[in-house]
Amino acid sequence: MTTLSKLLELIAPPDHAAAAAARRHLDTLTKPPGSLGRLEDLAAALAALQGTPHVDAPVVFLFAADHGVVAEGVSAYPPSVTAQMVENFRAGGAAINVLARQAGARVVVADFGVGAPTGNMAREPAMTREQAVAAIEKGAALAEEAAAGGADLFATGEMGIGSTTAASALTAAMTGAPVARVTGRGTGVDDATWRHKVEVVERVLARHRPDPRDPLAVLAAVGGFEIAGLVGVLLAGAAHRVPVAVDGFIATSAALIAAALAPTVRPALFAAHRSAEPGHAVALAHLGLEPYLDLGLRLGEGTGAALFVHLARAAARIFGEMATFKSAGVDGPR
Amino acid sequence: MTTLSKLLELIAPPDHAAAAAARRHLDTLTKPPGSLGRLEDLAAALAALQGTPHVDAPVVFLFAADHGVVAEGVSAYPPSVTAQMVENFRAGGAAINVLARQAGARVVVADFGVGAPTGNMAREPAMTREQAVAAIEKGAALAEEAAAGGADLFATGEMGIGSTTAASALTAAMTGAPVARVTGRGTGVDDATWRHKVEVVERVLARHRPDPRDPLAVLAAVGGFEIAGLVGVLLAGAAHRVPVAVDGFIATSAALIAAALAPTVRPALFAAHRSAEPGHAVALAHLGLEPYLDLGLRLGEGTGAALFVHLARAAARIFGEMATFKSAGVDGPR
Repeated sequence: MTTLSKLLELIAPPDHAAAAAARRHLDTLTKPPGSLGRLEDLAAALAALQGTPHVDAPVVFLFAADHGVVAEGVSAYPPSVTAQMVENFRAGGAAINVLARQAGARVVVADFGVGAPTGNMAREPAMTREQAVAAIEKGAALAEEAAAGGADLFATGEMGIGSTTAASALTAAMTGAPVARVTGRGTGVDDATWRHKVEVVERVLARHRPDPRDPLAVLAAVGGFEIAGLVGVLLAGAAHRVPVAVDGFIATSAALIAAALAPTVRPALFAAHRSAEPGHAVALAHLGLEPYLDLGLRLGEGTGAALFVHLARAAARIFGEMATFKSAGVDGPR
Repeated sequence: MTTLSKLLELIAPPDHAAAAAARRHLDTLTKPPGSLGRLEDLAAALAALQGTPHVDAPVVFLFAADHGVVAEGVSAYPPSVTAQMVENFRAGGAAINVLARQAGARVVVADFGVGAPTGNMAREPAMTREQAVAAIEKGAALAEEAAAGGADLFATGEMGIGSTTAASALTAAMTGAPVARVTGRGTGVDDATWRHKVEVVERVLARHRPDPRDPLAVLAAVGGFEIAGLVGVLLAGAAHRVPVAVDGFIATSAALIAAALAPTVRPALFAAHRSAEPGHAVALAHLGLEPYLDLGLRLGEGTGAALFVHLARAAARIFGEMATFKSAGVDGPR
C-alpha cells in the first residue's frame, strides 16, 4: 500500500506539451477550430494526463460511512439508511447503479465505516489524524488497484447520512466562507432543521477551530471516513495520471483537502457538475474548477460524475475518431 | 406523405396526467424526492409524450443545403464545403458521426439542396412558399418514416455554409431582437466580416419585411431548405409524440417557425444545449426553453443534440430501473 507521503511525492505536473499537441490535432479535424467548445478543452486536459485521451474503463468509487454528528438531528433521514443503501448499491438498484451501467462504468462499493460512525464532531473530533490518514490510504489503495487493472477514469461517489454536515464544515474551514452560505438542505431538511444544522456547524467550527494550513487536521476534526477515502482516490488519480471526475458537494469538499495537500492535484480533477447544494459553488470557485453539467442534482453517490463520463468519452472519441480536413478532402477557410 | 395542414391537426397537448403519474413514481425511488433535479423533470416531460419514458432508438436528422446568401461573403468557408461535408457524413468521419455512434443513434443524412442553393435573400426571397411547404413535408416524411420504424427520440442536425446568416434573419424576424444581438461569428468570421454579416441581415430584413404572424412567409423569405426540413421534423415529432432534441442556433430558428405554426409543438421540444452563437439564447428565451447543456458548442450537425441523448436516456433509465424504497427495504424520511 502506497503511503500518503509517497503518494504526494508521486504527483507530477501535467504534460503541457501533450495538451498543446492535442490542440493542434483538434484543429486538423473537420470542424471550425474550437467549435466543439469545452469538449475540446476536455480532450486537451485529458491529453495532458494520458497522452492520447481515452475513456474505456471508468470506475466509480462509491464509499459509504456513518457520521456521529447525526446525533445532533441534522438529517431528514435516520442513520439506518446508510447501511440499507449499501445493500441497494450491492443489489444494483440505486441511481448510481443505473447511471454507471449506462456509462459502462464499474462501481466499487466500499464500507468506510457503515454502522461504525465517526465521532460526533459537535462534541469531539470526527476522527484522529491517524484514522484520517488510514482512510486516505485505504481509498488510494482501492484506486491504485483499479488503475493497475486498467481503469482510465475515476469517478467519485459517496453515501452517508450526515455527510453534507461534514462537507459544510470542511468547506467553511477550508474556504473561510460563512457557514450559512455553505450549508444546504442535504437530503431535504425543513427550515427549522436547516437553521439548526447551520448552528451545529458553527458550534463545530468554534470548538475545533480547524486551521486550513493543516488540511489533515481539518479533515480529522470535521470530515468523514468516506470523505477521507475520496481524498485518497483524488490523490491516487493525480499520482497515476488518471483523470478524476469529481461529483458533488461532498466529493468537492474532499477535493479541497486534496488540493491543499498537493496543489498539483488540480489538473487531474474534472468538476462533473454543479449541485443544488449552495456550498458546492463556493468550493468549486475556491478550487478554480468550472463544472461541466448544471442539472440541479443533489443526490451524491457519484451520479453527476457518472453523467460526466459521457462527456469525457465524447471528447476522447472526437479526438480519436474524426476525419481531418485532409483525409476527408474538405476545404479549409478561405 | 402527410401534408403540413394534416400534420398541424395531429398535434395534441401533452398528457399531464402521465407526467403527474411519472412524478409520483419518481418519488417512490430510492433517493430523496427531487434530488435528481432536471433528470426528473426530463423523465416527467418524456412521460407526458411517451407514457413510460424510453430512449432506445434515437435518430439524428442531418439535413444539408446550400444558401444563396453566401454570394454576399458572409462565411469564413467556401460553399464547396457543404457537399464535401455531406461526403464526410456518409463516410462517418464528422463530429456528428462520432457522437451519434457513441449515443447509439442512427444518422439520416438528407440532401435538401446541396449545390442547388436557395435564392440569395439579399436580392430575392430564399424560396417560394410552395418550396418551403414542400421542404417541411419532406422533412416530416423522413421523420414519420423513422417513427414508423421505431425511432423514439429525434435529434435535429444540419449543415450548410451560410446557414447561420439565415438563422439570424429568422430569429430577428420572429423575436424582434436587434440583428446585431442575434448575429454571431458562425464558423468563425473576423470582425470586419461579422460587421458585414450584420449589415447583410439588416438589408435582408429591410427588403422582405417578414411578418412573424405569417411564419411560412418568414421561412420562405429568409430561411433555408434544411431549416424548413427541420421544421418538418419538429412538427412530426410533436404530431407522433416523439420527443425532439433541438440542437443549436439553426435548429432553434426552425423551432421558432414550428412553434409559431403550432404552439402545442413546444412540449415535444427539448433544448439540448446553449450554443456559443449569441442568437441562440435569444431564440431559446423566446420559446421558453431552458437548455440542458452549456458547453460552448457552435458546430451544429446535431452535435449538442447527440450529447443530450445521454441525458434523456439517463432520465428514462432512472425511471425504469431504480429500486423503490419499498422494494429495497430502505427507510424513508423520519
